[in-house]
Amino acid sequence: MTRLEQQMNFIIEIDKLKEIVRQTYISSAERKETDAEHAWHFAIMAVLLAEYANEPVDVMKVVKMALIHDLVEIDAGDTYLYDEEGAKTKADRENKAADRLFHMLPEDQGEEFDSIWREFEERKTPEARFAAALDRLQPVMLNDATNGKAWEEHGITEEQVRSHNEHVKKGSLAIWEYLEKIFDKNIEKGKIQRSSL
Amino acid sequence: MTRLEQQMNFIIEIDKLKEIVRQTYISSAERKETDAEHAWHFAIMAVLLAEYANEPVDVMKVVKMALIHDLVEIDAGDTYLYDEEGAKTKADRENKAADRLFHMLPEDQGEEFDSIWREFEERKTPEARFAAALDRLQPVMLNDATNGKAWEEHGITEEQVRSHNEHVKKGSLAIWEYLEKIFDKNIEKGKIQRSSL
Repeated sequence: MTRLEQQMNFIIEIDKLKEIVRQTYISSAERKETDAEHAWHFAIMAVLLAEYANEPVDVMKVVKMALIHDLVEIDAGDTYLYDEEGAKTKADRENKAADRLFHMLPEDQGEEFDSIWREFEERKTPEARFAAALDRLQPVMLNDATNGKAWEEHGITEEQVRSHNEHVKKGSLAIWEYLEKIFDKNIEKGKIQRSSL
Repeated sequence: MTRLEQQMNFIIEIDKLKEIVRQTYISSAERKETDAEHAWHFAIMAVLLAEYANEPVDVMKVVKMALIHDLVEIDAGDTYLYDEEGAKTKADRENKAADRLFHMLPEDQGEEFDSIWREFEERKTPEARFAAALDRLQPVMLNDATNGKAWEEHGITEEQVRSHNEHVKKGSLAIWEYLEKIFDKNIEKGKIQRSSL
């Protein structure tokens, strides 16, 4: 197989990202969004919001993280943020998927994609922490725009949103403050359940 | 309105790109893809295929072109490549859309997006010519993967595919050669109608 054929086969294979449906509704609330749509939205947010990263970031790297961070879900499926059972096996399922998918590419590109995906998952660099913040901001904005539809359907609580999104502050304090306002408003409206503590 | 609020309003507004449906089927052939999905696919192709551009390109600029090139369709709708009537009013409809959408952003970012979109449309720079090649390659690959479904539905002819895709060679000869093989195969199979010339 030529280098170009390897690349083209990968490009067709990842078309399957358009068939992975997330729990988040698009802004019209008419249907849930796909992983590919989420990745596009996340990538454009990286371009527009880079100025709010806590530390200077290489925007191109954040965009690449956005474009490829969910490819492993082609094999592993989407694990909902608040799915505690699914979370237990997520890393194992996603590692196997990365092995298969990134090995379809020419070695140099496969290694780059694998490395960017792992960097994103580990959240140890400024780019990964900022990308993780955007990856949380994107569905929260859509949940807010759809009057808390996905939160209500899943009975999400104040405690859950605060604990599962807290890492956003490590990537961007400005975005974390924005999220807190959205959470407060939706707790007030009863779309996110107030903790009984 | 604060700068951040302007940016966030724009980010929610462009969510509508997920509701613009194209004529191209996703690889499973189960439904047509959305503009947002196409933009994601095109962006990742820019990262993977930049080595085939006829001239060296700034990959980040090509990725930005991919992410934003169809935003104007939020107001103007998708004009199918082979829709000769729609083509007559396309530029006017899209210019009005660009005016409205990009003015939602802070001035510096609105000007950048407008400038990148116009550069893409004009095809006068290496980045724009290469991006235009990828924008054609993406649906052709999906048409091929779905056994020519969209071509058959629209009764597309050899003459149409050659004339509407010929500019690809100005962005990437390697991609043009790849496209020609796909066209030849699908003409042979009867998925693209052989010209009666």
